Amino acid sequence: MRASQYLLSTLKETPADAEVISHQLMLRAGMIRKVASGLYTWLPTGYRVLKKVENIVREEMNKAGAIELLMPVVQPADIWLESGRWEQYGPELLRIKDRGARDFVLGPTHEEVITDLLRNEVSSYKQLPLNFFQIQTKFRDEVRPRFGVMRSREFIMKDAYSFHTTQESLQKTYDDMYAAYSAIFTRVGLDFRAVQADTGSIGGSWSHEFQVLADSGEDDVIFSTESDYAANIEKAEALAPTAQRAAPTKTMELIDTPNAKTIEELVNQFNIAVEKTVKTLIVKATKDSGHQFVALLVRGDHTLNEVKAEKLELIASPLEFASEQEILSAIGAGPGSLGPVNLKLPVIIDRDVAVMSDFSAGANIDGKHYFNINWQRDVSLPMIADIRNVVEGDKSPDGKGTLLIKRGIEVGHIFQLGTKYSKAMNATVQGEDGQNHVMIMGCYGIGVTRIVAAAIEQRYDDRGIIWPDAIAPFKVAIIPMNMHKSEKVQQTAEKLYTELQASGIDVFFDDRKERPGVMFADAELIGIPHTIVIGERNLDNGEVEYKYRADGDKKMVRADSIIDFIKNKCQ
Amino acid sequence: MRASQYLLSTLKETPADAEVISHQLMLRAGMIRKVASGLYTWLPTGYRVLKKVENIVREEMNKAGAIELLMPVVQPADIWLESGRWEQYGPELLRIKDRGARDFVLGPTHEEVITDLLRNEVSSYKQLPLNFFQIQTKFRDEVRPRFGVMRSREFIMKDAYSFHTTQESLQKTYDDMYAAYSAIFTRVGLDFRAVQADTGSIGGSWSHEFQVLADSGEDDVIFSTESDYAANIEKAEALAPTAQRAAPTKTMELIDTPNAKTIEELVNQFNIAVEKTVKTLIVKATKDSGHQFVALLVRGDHTLNEVKAEKLELIASPLEFASEQEILSAIGAGPGSLGPVNLKLPVIIDRDVAVMSDFSAGANIDGKHYFNINWQRDVSLPMIADIRNVVEGDKSPDGKGTLLIKRGIEVGHIFQLGTKYSKAMNATVQGEDGQNHVMIMGCYGIGVTRIVAAAIEQRYDDRGIIWPDAIAPFKVAIIPMNMHKSEKVQQTAEKLYTELQASGIDVFFDDRKERPGVMFADAELIGIPHTIVIGERNLDNGEVEYKYRADGDKKMVRADSIIDFIKNKCQ
Repeated sequence: MRASQYLLSTLKETPADAEVISHQLMLRAGMIRKVASGLYTWLPTGYRVLKKVENIVREEMNKAGAIELLMPVVQPADIWLESGRWEQYGPELLRIKDRGARDFVLGPTHEEVITDLLRNEVSSYKQLPLNFFQIQTKFRDEVRPRFGVMRSREFIMKDAYSFHTTQESLQKTYDDMYAAYSAIFTRVGLDFRAVQADTGSIGGSWSHEFQVLADSGEDDVIFSTESDYAANIEKAEALAPTAQRAAPTKTMELIDTPNAKTIEELVNQFNIAVEKTVKTLIVKATKDSGHQFVALLVRGDHTLNEVKAEKLELIASPLEFASEQEILSAIGAGPGSLGPVNLKLPVIIDRDVAVMSDFSAGANIDGKHYFNINWQRDVSLPMIADIRNVVEGDKSPDGKGTLLIKRGIEVGHIFQLGTKYSKAMNATVQGEDGQNHVMIMGCYGIGVTRIVAAAIEQRYDDRGIIWPDAIAPFKVAIIPMNMHKSEKVQQTAEKLYTELQASGIDVFFDDRKERPGVMFADAELIGIPHTIVIGERNLDNGEVEYKYRADGDKKMVRADSIIDFIKNKCQ
Repeated sequence: MRASQYLLSTLKETPADAEVISHQLMLRAGMIRKVASGLYTWLPTGYRVLKKVENIVREEMNKAGAIELLMPVVQPADIWLESGRWEQYGPELLRIKDRGARDFVLGPTHEEVITDLLRNEVSSYKQLPLNFFQIQTKFRDEVRPRFGVMRSREFIMKDAYSFHTTQESLQKTYDDMYAAYSAIFTRVGLDFRAVQADTGSIGGSWSHEFQVLADSGEDDVIFSTESDYAANIEKAEALAPTAQRAAPTKTMELIDTPNAKTIEELVNQFNIAVEKTVKTLIVKATKDSGHQFVALLVRGDHTLNEVKAEKLELIASPLEFASEQEILSAIGAGPGSLGPVNLKLPVIIDRDVAVMSDFSAGANIDGKHYFNINWQRDVSLPMIADIRNVVEGDKSPDGKGTLLIKRGIEVGHIFQLGTKYSKAMNATVQGEDGQNHVMIMGCYGIGVTRIVAAAIEQRYDDRGIIWPDAIAPFKVAIIPMNMHKSEKVQQTAEKLYTELQASGIDVFFDDRKERPGVMFADAELIGIPHTIVIGERNLDNGEVEYKYRADGDKKMVRADSIIDFIKNKCQ
């Protein structure tokens, strides 16, 4: 590509509204431009990277035996009603009406469309397993789109869906996808981890997230200091403490705490250790439980893990907190004064709360707390469950080492869906036994556009992006010095450009009438891995200069061997 | 691809709701499935074809110097308000609201987004010309989606937009695009014609349509019998008759015609030649004309050309017909009794009407017509214009031969847009003179998904599709006879499959336990150009059978030279 016939659109200044480095650099490098909140145009330089990522994803999916197809962006409501997601999905699902006022959605994923397809097209177990993928535009109406293409509303996803008659067959495809994803992220050049994940609202039974470690990540990823255990925060188990509950040492007291509505206020005003306090959260119970609300207790310095909580039988899913008004009318006290003593609700306490003694909690009377509460002596021990998020220093669930927390960007996710969709939509095949069997499903997603941002988060310096060769917009930059004054420089540059292009190498030829400093800055900002600088003086010595973006190393190379030198670098 | 690991989804029966052959064959060949009205999933076989078409389009666009980027499907309303299309575009433009009740559209084209981009990114004439393209999902909420992907609501389009400071530069890019389009449609294997076209509601000054000739086409394409003149029906000029108007021979009479509300009824009941009758149509006038309505007169056997009419200064664009009620209150007579005599509206008559004499038309009194009207004698001659559609036998506008009408499928369209969008959106660059100049634009569209259907309309037989090699889903089918009983057949087939694949040839290996007849029928239905049949008896003679889909020719080929034979065919 000749710079003079290209839209470079690089920016010197960092745009004020871009918070994370990838967003800043994608704007500065002329990769994307915002069209509206969460909606971006991929400029030529960004699109080149995107297309390379897409091709790597496609190649590895094909290699793994998945079959490509293409489903529509706009999906009819009826299949979403059938799966139940029309009701369950929050406002991220953009529901629209066509000119005839019929309901549709802009697809955030395609489980319904593919399940509907397969129930019509497949009739026998002999046709399975099958695994389909598409690389396609998705829409999620994020409440707060941010970080550029990292969390945009419109994005490109590779989504795959597999169909099986046995769990073993699903496990085999799941393992194949695990391997394919590892190959994809390795080829793209990402430092990633596959971590155990919860299946969340999409349903199903088993899943892994592929997380790129970066400070700007929005997810907490949990690692063991001494094993390869890795999970996301929703999934990571907080083991039951090994220590026994200590015996009571103090008498329970009802204390006036008019200004202590939070744990922090209680701890500060009464000088008690936060580990001796308990937080009480009121959530809605399932409709058929016979209860309206359930109280959840975690230690004052811990936080509730909503995913763990909503999986408990008593508790409504998705988790819904009681409003202040609901708490007042159900308990007679506000949210700042709640506790287990004299509480007329079902109570579930965290494993760590179960071993506490002489602890403080609200008295279910506004402005009052009980101090020195002890289980069994003052209140009977309720149901115990793991309902908190792990914290650094917790024991690793596999028994090896302790937990570390790092930030991650989720770039892929593989699920064993089971029969969630196929059952709801009655997608069956005839089995070997002649009977109809509900198909077992897996689904496998990759955030194609997000990979681009994640790659930048891991590789940049103060001059700009440092692309891995595999996804660089151009592999080689040719920078001629004062080309418009030197015929020799111009001829060498033109010849080199033509020859490299003929070798199938993506070359950026900066033929603009710009100062060398501007050309260098642009090539570095957009992150071209290999640069060839052509200057008259060096040419007089039969040489050109080669520069490697990643480490800034320079090297003189014989002009007549530069093509082979570069070909060698670009292999 | 092994058939056993693929979703073939071929159908024996022709689906009842598919009217045209391409729709029928795309369903039968397992290329597409309907998700909802005008929304389709591209099954693996269809997707393979689509992807090949897309790649050809991309290669030729790149070759022609266009730069690829990607704009969002969902576009904010504000830029559509700025261009004026928010108001002008009919209900085909799907207007939606996001979770915050902000207005958006699902993009049917991207003039607004690209113009907004360029006005921000380009500041100097030195950066131009630039030509951008994308291959992307579009949405048009068709009132009656039909013919499968030929007129669907969601479809894939290649749209390109060029920016210039001079008309000469636009013309150069327009010519380049004309050449690129010709190369694309030739490579895809279509029998097409570039025809002069009207620019329609998208605006602009000059355009060509690329039409694929097929009986199922929805467009009328006009050709000369003796020259290369070709135009679409909207554009084709009806020349003024060379004959002079004949002198009046009869006296004008007011006749009772209570049962003649249409030209057909008038002609039948009173035994007059249809060429001696005139149709009067009432349309709305432009707001600033000082008139509310305008009467348009065409000969009884001609039809109004709405595009020609709405270009006339007096007439509102888009063309809007007066309602029956509006006609009654403006004229005092219903639509079945209108004519030029005593009509208190501005009147525009077609060139052919201007040379009529002794003709009949409504009397502007319900149930009455004037017979033997003559211009100037009975009513003064109104404004004359070309406002009718041409008919077969008309003289060619270039003076050579007469006109023929054929049916066409529009697969591409190139426009010289001029400054329609850049002016409305104030997209300027600084010129050589230091002043700001509104950029001049071109736009260039290809219906990527429609090409697939159009290719089928041109190449099929009673066994199925006959793909050109360039876009066939698979180039070669390997059909082994009774493979599961013959180790020799199986080994030969497997080896051939592996070797052809290694040569980069798309092979469909029918490894199913099916009867040969089923395999042949499927390979022919999905239109694989080259078939290799492997049978034990032929192998005993060291031979395999080669069959060419297009003509059904069979040929025995030495088994040890079949790879070279096929490679040669697939070049």
